[in-house]
Amino acid sequence: MDISAFGEFELVARLTAGLAVSTAGDIGVGDDCALLDLGRGDLLLATCDSQVEGVHFSLGSSPSEHIGRKALAINLSDIAAMGGTPRYALISLLLPSHLSIEVLDGIYAGLRAQAQRFDTAIVGGNISSTGGSPQLVIDITLLGTVERGHALLRSGAHAGDLICVTGSLGDSAAGLQTFLHTTTDVSPQDLQTLRERHTAPEPRVREGQLLGALGGGKVTAMLDISDGLSGDLTHLCERSGCGARVDLAAIPLSAPLLRVARSLQHDPLDWALHGGEDYELLFTLRPSALDEVRSAIQQQSGTPLTVIGEIQPPTAGLTLSHPDGHTEPLHPHSWDHLNHPSP
Amino acid sequence: MDISAFGEFELVARLTAGLAVSTAGDIGVGDDCALLDLGRGDLLLATCDSQVEGVHFSLGSSPSEHIGRKALAINLSDIAAMGGTPRYALISLLLPSHLSIEVLDGIYAGLRAQAQRFDTAIVGGNISSTGGSPQLVIDITLLGTVERGHALLRSGAHAGDLICVTGSLGDSAAGLQTFLHTTTDVSPQDLQTLRERHTAPEPRVREGQLLGALGGGKVTAMLDISDGLSGDLTHLCERSGCGARVDLAAIPLSAPLLRVARSLQHDPLDWALHGGEDYELLFTLRPSALDEVRSAIQQQSGTPLTVIGEIQPPTAGLTLSHPDGHTEPLHPHSWDHLNHPSP
Repeated sequence: MDISAFGEFELVARLTAGLAVSTAGDIGVGDDCALLDLGRGDLLLATCDSQVEGVHFSLGSSPSEHIGRKALAINLSDIAAMGGTPRYALISLLLPSHLSIEVLDGIYAGLRAQAQRFDTAIVGGNISSTGGSPQLVIDITLLGTVERGHALLRSGAHAGDLICVTGSLGDSAAGLQTFLHTTTDVSPQDLQTLRERHTAPEPRVREGQLLGALGGGKVTAMLDISDGLSGDLTHLCERSGCGARVDLAAIPLSAPLLRVARSLQHDPLDWALHGGEDYELLFTLRPSALDEVRSAIQQQSGTPLTVIGEIQPPTAGLTLSHPDGHTEPLHPHSWDHLNHPSP
Repeated sequence: MDISAFGEFELVARLTAGLAVSTAGDIGVGDDCALLDLGRGDLLLATCDSQVEGVHFSLGSSPSEHIGRKALAINLSDIAAMGGTPRYALISLLLPSHLSIEVLDGIYAGLRAQAQRFDTAIVGGNISSTGGSPQLVIDITLLGTVERGHALLRSGAHAGDLICVTGSLGDSAAGLQTFLHTTTDVSPQDLQTLRERHTAPEPRVREGQLLGALGGGKVTAMLDISDGLSGDLTHLCERSGCGARVDLAAIPLSAPLLRVARSLQHDPLDWALHGGEDYELLFTLRPSALDEVRSAIQQQSGTPLTVIGEIQPPTAGLTLSHPDGHTEPLHPHSWDHLNHPSP
């Protein structure tokens, strides 16, 4: 049987069956990063993620610097999602022989600049031929550290906690659509803003560290939105053993996204709920901590924080609450990284 | 200009220009693993290496368990080459959609069994679609630890040190050739022995730890032979700032290799000097430490240790010494991982 009969999450579950999974306070796998205890000092965080030409990016749509920048950003975002500090990167490249040295230099310049911005040392790597395949692959392992007791896992949310996100949602998916479809009446600036949210997302490293430093009694669970809000909230609820209610009217949407949605006659909330690769942080907090958390994030990072709903008992499931008061089930339309279009 | 105009080492040098390189006792990159200091406790070792279908392996020649086993072995060998202890692995897979689930399960079974043998926890990973490309890729990052002062680098060799290797050389290259050419008068057992040296090499983890524990005053430099003896000895000499003399008659050759060389009418020393992927350890030691090192290795691991030459002053360059006393320059014919055949 071909693996095409399986989805990404099904395959991962099959391959990782029986491996140790972390729960609050414990060490293990199954979160945005592995959390490792070397015996003394801070805990170690380790994550790896790859970008494949034709799957995650296209040389025609992304400046080569952005390709390198994003390849590191998606890993930085995983460290951010645990409240950690990025430290060391290992870069593995699969290089098709036709690749121009200028493109490779550009990718590496993007990688180095991104690493420098986040005080991350490139300490190793590997290059291999693709052996005739035309596709460039950038596979990065990023190591970080987090103070004991400061790591935020997916598993700590409780009924009554508020559900929050940083920034705005759906911009990356909207930016991707502007590569795939022709827009009319959209300003070049809106196009650039949304496309850069797709090709050069900003990892919320500082915000993650601020949230981690507040401690688990205030911020209870966190992950980054790489698969889309509906999919990643499902992950959080599964790991925390809870339900959730999302208030549709509260979901933060950017002005450029609303204008592009109008131009493409697409529901902007579809991108915000189910679009992938926002790399915003999705987290839960005790209601009493809201003011402190909001002022910590907004004053120290300048990034908006929005309450979009509330964690519910597990029996409530995942629901979407409309402004008129009616609710409907929220089904994950998760970004399947094995099967999604590239620009 | 295409990258095909560049060799592997040239590209690596271009991409890593300006990054911190470790020298004896210091922390940095440029050795078999990056050596990282998290501030307390043991030092961290990090390495990554990938196996690409059609470049490093073929599904037709290798049992799928061997593919997984080797993918981890080549990384375990890098930890071994620093005298370290493997701890954590992150597995990144690029999966073509036509891949059968049985092959994937087999590869993962090989990975897990190998990890278990070497007390290594699989703590993370990632799967991506190849987006239409037919090639399976296994990219692994392996983390290990090494006690402060016990890491063996490439840079510590001095004139007068003895040059040693574990095991026998050239078997992997000979095994590869038996997939590419028809042999006559070779026993099935010889074929299997050499092919398994190619498809399922044994990382010298225990031997590396024993050598690391002896300390830098006895064992002065080490790396693993992945590029071939001539290429890897060149790396060691470049990093140590020295020359070397290899005694041709001393190079350890296995009996199956000699029989296959006769069958294929190939010079067995060519495989031993320039064949890649032996994953034996190449190290240097003070002559006064030879007896202690030999008994430590041979008694505790059972692996043979052979003295194959002597480190020379830098002006001597790299030479090959024949039994009749004449010498010739030894040029590296390094295994270029960007351009070599797969079975």
